[in-house]
Amino acid sequence: MAPHEFPAIDPRGLHAMFDDLSAIGRTPGGGVTRLAASREDGLARDYLCDWLRREGFRVRIDHVGNIYGLLEVASPGAPLLLTGSHLDSQPFGGRFDGACGVVASCEAVRSVRAFGQARAGRFSRNLGVVAWTNEEGTRFQPSTLGSLVFAGLYEAAGALAQTDGDGVTLEQALATIGYLGADDPPSQVESYLELHIEQGKHLEDGGSTIGIVEGNWGTVKYVADIRGEAAHTGPTPMKERRDALLVAARLIVLCRTLSDETDGALVTSVGRLDIAPNSTNVVAGRVRLFAEFRALDGARLADACRRFEDAAAGLAAPGVSVALRRTTERAPGSFDPALRDLLETVARAQGHRTMRLYTIAGHDAVPLRAVCRSGMIFVPSVGGVSHTEQELTRAGDMEAGATVLAGALYALATERIPPGPA
Amino acid sequence: MAPHEFPAIDPRGLHAMFDDLSAIGRTPGGGVTRLAASREDGLARDYLCDWLRREGFRVRIDHVGNIYGLLEVASPGAPLLLTGSHLDSQPFGGRFDGACGVVASCEAVRSVRAFGQARAGRFSRNLGVVAWTNEEGTRFQPSTLGSLVFAGLYEAAGALAQTDGDGVTLEQALATIGYLGADDPPSQVESYLELHIEQGKHLEDGGSTIGIVEGNWGTVKYVADIRGEAAHTGPTPMKERRDALLVAARLIVLCRTLSDETDGALVTSVGRLDIAPNSTNVVAGRVRLFAEFRALDGARLADACRRFEDAAAGLAAPGVSVALRRTTERAPGSFDPALRDLLETVARAQGHRTMRLYTIAGHDAVPLRAVCRSGMIFVPSVGGVSHTEQELTRAGDMEAGATVLAGALYALATERIPPGPA
Repeated sequence: MAPHEFPAIDPRGLHAMFDDLSAIGRTPGGGVTRLAASREDGLARDYLCDWLRREGFRVRIDHVGNIYGLLEVASPGAPLLLTGSHLDSQPFGGRFDGACGVVASCEAVRSVRAFGQARAGRFSRNLGVVAWTNEEGTRFQPSTLGSLVFAGLYEAAGALAQTDGDGVTLEQALATIGYLGADDPPSQVESYLELHIEQGKHLEDGGSTIGIVEGNWGTVKYVADIRGEAAHTGPTPMKERRDALLVAARLIVLCRTLSDETDGALVTSVGRLDIAPNSTNVVAGRVRLFAEFRALDGARLADACRRFEDAAAGLAAPGVSVALRRTTERAPGSFDPALRDLLETVARAQGHRTMRLYTIAGHDAVPLRAVCRSGMIFVPSVGGVSHTEQELTRAGDMEAGATVLAGALYALATERIPPGPA
Repeated sequence: MAPHEFPAIDPRGLHAMFDDLSAIGRTPGGGVTRLAASREDGLARDYLCDWLRREGFRVRIDHVGNIYGLLEVASPGAPLLLTGSHLDSQPFGGRFDGACGVVASCEAVRSVRAFGQARAGRFSRNLGVVAWTNEEGTRFQPSTLGSLVFAGLYEAAGALAQTDGDGVTLEQALATIGYLGADDPPSQVESYLELHIEQGKHLEDGGSTIGIVEGNWGTVKYVADIRGEAAHTGPTPMKERRDALLVAARLIVLCRTLSDETDGALVTSVGRLDIAPNSTNVVAGRVRLFAEFRALDGARLADACRRFEDAAAGLAAPGVSVALRRTTERAPGSFDPALRDLLETVARAQGHRTMRLYTIAGHDAVPLRAVCRSGMIFVPSVGGVSHTEQELTRAGDMEAGATVLAGALYALATERIPPGPA
């Protein structure tokens, strides 16, 4: 199959949309702070919905704020090809994580429609773009909350009841920005494709432009509520202290030790502590600790979790309690083999060097596997840097990814699957 | 010397003033949040100044916001007896820490004047009440900042340039609440007396009402600025992480270990971490850690500090730096022996059981030693609890302390020193 058989995307449109979104919640350091269902997230959602309506998409907002832009290019009851990512970010996060995939999806679907119309092509699949709610899991837990609800893996009521650090529920936050929707999510989704930045540097190190994501590492995330007793840091005898921060510190060190023993095959981290009262002269009475464990091998992950839970129980002492709660349990798993092959074939046919790799981070494409075929591609992150303001994906790599996405969508929508490499 | 020779305080006035102050910045849990130079601190200062003026004191505010209420009962150039404490509190702190001493000082000085006037007594000393700025050291560092400046141990300009967690300087904060004063502090201070709650439970355990403070433990406080690199907690390989929070955790555990080795003769604590970005999915790039070391034995304290500093240097690694800064260095020391004896004599003559003890916490009376005779008494803290909303000193104990303070001030102001116990 010749290169001209693929839709061409409009690079100017792609970058203009991306730059507009990057301006929403921009930080002085060149990143974005666009926490889920925040004012900034609302502005980014408004921008996306305006774009979708202008381009003739039918916009729907479901009960947890997921945004769908639907394009009926085939018959009304035809299967749906959905593609998208998320608009929320980390605090002082990067511009590319999430938004890059949403923009690529918009541009890819637009170009697929135009390419088909120019050829009077017959579509047997409808097309849709999606922006999922609260992928990051930083303001509300767990991460990939919107896609978990879509996939039936999390109750909508439970998702809406999640609270942020200020006690605001997701429901209140979505209502405030006008995205507590009433639409049913689309049914008949046959396949889901997502483009995302790699957030690692395997592609960069390997000189590849397109990563074909084989599957995902397993992940377990914990919230540990440690309760001790606030007291004066001076006169309170050491033996009578119920120091919640000391217990937190021991858990942080333990997490690292568990990983070191595996030489990195188990990845662990504690990135956040909420400490009360967090005052220089007061023994901390309460700490909420957020811990993560990831491994490709499910048995290794389960073993580490058991040891962490045992240690937490062991650190509890008279006057100090440690209550663990799992907020995320994502088993290791694989993306759809046919979609992986298709994405690889399209990428190679377009002249890109590809690499098969796993994702350690979670993505919305993972829960989607429960309800449809799901596939993912990665585009390179310069230096592997992500979740920081320095995050960067080069313009040419974004264009390449969007074009691969368009090629795969066109192939699926018209059932003109290109042959694999000879 | 018979009990009737001492001024009697007015318990109703004492408790009314204390209750009024306790209502300013009151927390739902029955404590107060009245951070230094905050709006609430400003309201408490207004209340104090109103009270002082109503009672005929001349009010002065110095360049770092210390409030003096002066009463010229002797000749204009006579030596000054100063007594006071502080109005600022910890976040969600207790009502008694600081305010109890200010209120007792006000009531004691008022009763000394009335007692002297009723007897046409000749005062050879003038009297003054003081409320020092930022004793707690929680909003601005170091603690006892106002009294350090008064004592010439800290530059006023440097104090005013201290910033809180939001980058607000002490100068801005004082100006906002109207307490960036222009008055010179009073000179000719001969003696300083401070009443404070014990914040421990030696008095309670020993069945004593009045603690005669022999001296203070040495204290060194550090701010550690740990700089690593923010990164995604998933794909970033463990070996490439520059995790500032992991280094902080190791330092917290080390602090406890150093204390455990001394069986509590060295007291250590880390009560506060400022973490950035403090997001679940991001390796912490920056942590500011606040550590404290206290010991009665100066050599032991110095040894612990050396080991802490060595460890901090050792934890620095490629890509992670640890910069230590000492914000407080308070040597162990003793209060004025004659004042200790006087306070003990007065307390016993008033029928109170006394105990000699050391303070582990810092107090404004410590820096005052650099410029005048300085003495302190403690009143009991129920259960030794302090720096929390549960802090409690019984009404009768407050009255007893204020009466001892009045008795000592009267003795000093009239040079009628009561004889020691037979």
